Amino acid sequence: MSALARLSLNQETIKQWSLPELVEGCARAGVGGVGLWRGPVQEYGVERTARLVRDAGLTVTSLCRGGFFTADGWLSDNRAAVDEAAALGTDTLVLVSGGLPEGSRDLAGARERVAEALGELAPHARACGVRLAVEPLHPMFASDRCVVSTLGQALDIAERFPAEEVGVVVDTYHVWWDERAAAEIARAGAGARIHALQLADWITPLPAGVLLGRGQLGDGCVDFKGLVAASDAAGYAGRWIEVEIFNEGLWARDGAEVLGEVIARYGEVLG
Amino acid sequence: MSALARLSLNQETIKQWSLPELVEGCARAGVGGVGLWRGPVQEYGVERTARLVRDAGLTVTSLCRGGFFTADGWLSDNRAAVDEAAALGTDTLVLVSGGLPEGSRDLAGARERVAEALGELAPHARACGVRLAVEPLHPMFASDRCVVSTLGQALDIAERFPAEEVGVVVDTYHVWWDERAAAEIARAGAGARIHALQLADWITPLPAGVLLGRGQLGDGCVDFKGLVAASDAAGYAGRWIEVEIFNEGLWARDGAEVLGEVIARYGEVLG
Repeated sequence: MSALARLSLNQETIKQWSLPELVEGCARAGVGGVGLWRGPVQEYGVERTARLVRDAGLTVTSLCRGGFFTADGWLSDNRAAVDEAAALGTDTLVLVSGGLPEGSRDLAGARERVAEALGELAPHARACGVRLAVEPLHPMFASDRCVVSTLGQALDIAERFPAEEVGVVVDTYHVWWDERAAAEIARAGAGARIHALQLADWITPLPAGVLLGRGQLGDGCVDFKGLVAASDAAGYAGRWIEVEIFNEGLWARDGAEVLGEVIARYGEVLG
Repeated sequence: MSALARLSLNQETIKQWSLPELVEGCARAGVGGVGLWRGPVQEYGVERTARLVRDAGLTVTSLCRGGFFTADGWLSDNRAAVDEAAALGTDTLVLVSGGLPEGSRDLAGARERVAEALGELAPHARACGVRLAVEPLHPMFASDRCVVSTLGQALDIAERFPAEEVGVVVDTYHVWWDERAAAEIARAGAGARIHALQLADWITPLPAGVLLGRGQLGDGCVDFKGLVAASDAAGYAGRWIEVEIFNEGLWARDGAEVLGEVIARYGEVLG
């Protein structure tokens, strides 16, 4: 299997593309996998998206995202996300936990709440054949987006459940700085809990709000080779690698050109 | 000793003040300690600053900062920083390591380089009676400002040296998200390596560049009580607590008003 054969394009990387453009662009470029987001999928129609992707012979490698477990209606919303993942034919629902409740300073409590929420959601996900993939986000998002800040924390939570129910996402952007990343990847792999592997580079200066500061592969300082090698050594070899970059500069460009660049850079940083 | 008796104002919190304004403002407000920065001290004159502070009966609780160990001339610059600290009568020089060398993806190597640099600097610091205080910065600064990202990493480095030579800075802004913070504070205290304790709150959204995103005490989600209690339990009780906030909003206001607010908030969050 060539490295390129594992490449999946997360649709947020080229969000200027409609779903038909995404599917056509990937098929034309020989990219066999796509990671989808609930918003554009719902807008286009879940069944219609599933058909579109299936007819093009593409694999949906993950659905982003459920989580935000302190929001009103979180359980029904997350059950719907599981249903959408199942309808799209992906076995992986990415979960971002959400931040601290308004006015709270209790991070440990918020992290415990994530485990409780997973316990409530897991039976439905299991029944649908969808694995819940807890994504640790960089600690700069701990207060307002995701109280799960390290791969170690994500695994501490995931390991309370069977691996076929709950695993983790390894996203290079979020874990690159962590000296424990390689060891936690090994731990995750040993437990068959690496449910998704996503790539983006770390670049500075960070923009206001920091969410859209991800870099094109090779523009920053992430050791992609090391992190992918660690994942592969932990049993992830041969499985999908998603490129997921949120960057306004990429969104302003021609989608096909961006995809071409992603493919080239992907080859360079892993080659 | 009242809580307020431990309050030290890091001058960067009210950088609109000149050194004479700072010293007069602190003395008037009953704040007995100041944390100083090399730039304004050099501009005003090191000996002149030392006299000014001494005559007002203030204690210089730390000098910020040395470090940036990959810059040209780092050793002579850091030796000068040690000399300035000694001249100011403070026993604590805060060190921020600097980020990755241009084009490097080798974080582990960069962290090792910090330990080597400390080894070169420590004899001079010891001879001058100045302790080197390694400050871990939030992981969002790992690439461009400080490769030492956690208190645990800072201690791993510091513990290669005697405690009277190298310790750490506990800054709530940088460690609040880390579930290991309390345990690492205990470890640091057990080794007599908490050389400084600094407070700032975590608020969002982060501004572009993220450096000036620190919040006034009480405006964010940092558990000050918990972190200060952990430090005190680890042997830090009775020692200086610096408030160090970089925030353009505070800099735009009247200095005395900001100091009054800092004092009030300090009492509230720790009271």
